[in-house]
Amino acid sequence: MPERAIGLFDSGVGGLTLLKEVIRLLPQEELLYVGDTARVPYGTKSPETVRRYAVESASFLVRQGVKMLVVACNTASAVAIDELASQFKIPVIGVIEPGSRRAAALTINRKVGVIGTEGTVKSGAYARAIKRENPAIEVVSTACPLFVPLAEEGWADHQIAYIAAGEYLAPLIDAGIDTLVLGCTHYPLLKKTLHAVLGEKIQLVDSAEETAKVVVETLLCVGANRSGKGSVHFFVTDVPDRFKRVGSAFLGQNLQSVSQVILNPHNP
Amino acid sequence: MPERAIGLFDSGVGGLTLLKEVIRLLPQEELLYVGDTARVPYGTKSPETVRRYAVESASFLVRQGVKMLVVACNTASAVAIDELASQFKIPVIGVIEPGSRRAAALTINRKVGVIGTEGTVKSGAYARAIKRENPAIEVVSTACPLFVPLAEEGWADHQIAYIAAGEYLAPLIDAGIDTLVLGCTHYPLLKKTLHAVLGEKIQLVDSAEETAKVVVETLLCVGANRSGKGSVHFFVTDVPDRFKRVGSAFLGQNLQSVSQVILNPHNP
Repeated sequence: MPERAIGLFDSGVGGLTLLKEVIRLLPQEELLYVGDTARVPYGTKSPETVRRYAVESASFLVRQGVKMLVVACNTASAVAIDELASQFKIPVIGVIEPGSRRAAALTINRKVGVIGTEGTVKSGAYARAIKRENPAIEVVSTACPLFVPLAEEGWADHQIAYIAAGEYLAPLIDAGIDTLVLGCTHYPLLKKTLHAVLGEKIQLVDSAEETAKVVVETLLCVGANRSGKGSVHFFVTDVPDRFKRVGSAFLGQNLQSVSQVILNPHNP
Repeated sequence: MPERAIGLFDSGVGGLTLLKEVIRLLPQEELLYVGDTARVPYGTKSPETVRRYAVESASFLVRQGVKMLVVACNTASAVAIDELASQFKIPVIGVIEPGSRRAAALTINRKVGVIGTEGTVKSGAYARAIKRENPAIEVVSTACPLFVPLAEEGWADHQIAYIAAGEYLAPLIDAGIDTLVLGCTHYPLLKKTLHAVLGEKIQLVDSAEETAKVVVETLLCVGANRSGKGSVHFFVTDVPDRFKRVGSAFLGQNLQSVSQVILNPHNP
């Protein structure tokens, strides 16, 4: 029987921060990654539209025979995880639950901040998930729309990133949070800037790191790759050039083996 | 015979700066505007993908019986205008030619700057069009990827916009340009900031204003609306909420009559 792959998907390059963690923890696995670069970003789009796109990416990966689906996108996790879990018979892992669990475990003063896209923040998914862990935790959320372009343009360390972070985070700092969830897979690139703005007392939770640990745990159910060769293949919906160029900063290495695909032949 | 409408399309809200000019000059016309909000933005996508999207928006408008197509998007004009002109039998007006003609007429020292999206700048469409007007003109172009999110988030006047503009425009100022083309329909919202950074000696060319004049001229061929009532209807591919909210700043008035549509029933 051939080894089955782990499937991950995102709107574009953001999910590569999660893929990087998965590669680090599971170098022996075969990984398939879909970036929906013809329709990126998801963060400013409606739940209905993001749900439709997420189902198309997931269906494509399921047709490739993956043993597990990882929604490597906060916006899609926030609005589509229930739909995906009910449609597909393999484990579906989103980034909201792992990040929320970690934040709930870390906070001491029970005040947690969440930053993400407009879509993620509006959905309230993090606030609900954190309160499921501990209803006494107060959650303060804010959208940071400039962070994605800053990360993609290589301006994560730019003076502008510090000013934007200062402005976005001020209400969260004023609210007295001791823990901040990076609720967008682009944001790990801004960690240095965020640390500088937040100071030493506020801890960052990287949903990508937490989710990669859940992927490892889920392998116990679906079976690890025994041949142990390890490989990564990328599928994108626009031509690969920009994905390869911008993505290398997110993955921390060059992106080999990128194919352009039509997710749904009846519905490109 | 019923009056025929003028059709305009863009990836989202940016083209509303051009629509605003068309409404001002032609208040008696019936206007149909398509914003492809489910797949916005076009500026970071490949020419192939943008061309496919542009043909879908144009086909939708042609099915509504429009008498003229206005490509209210610089990226789509840059990569799809020839394809559109050859596919459709009605006049097709893009924003590149009118802006380029105006810039060529205005420059005294024959040094013109062009700012736009990654896609527009990479296409070289403005440089070619300006040089067709006058081959002696030197064209310096640069992409300004943060300007679109800054305009959409209402941060066009923000300190960050000034810093970003200073950085993007420095090479153009150093090159000695006396004229700058705003090669993206979002950029008119940043005029104040751009004027402040460029100083009084560099003139701005607003492609939206120039294109609206060409729309007026083209009415001589296709016939003006004689009933003279005037109306605007918007079609968007994602749910209308965000388009209405963000778009009002671009149009300078509230957006009434917005419908969500599937551009191509076989290919949503």
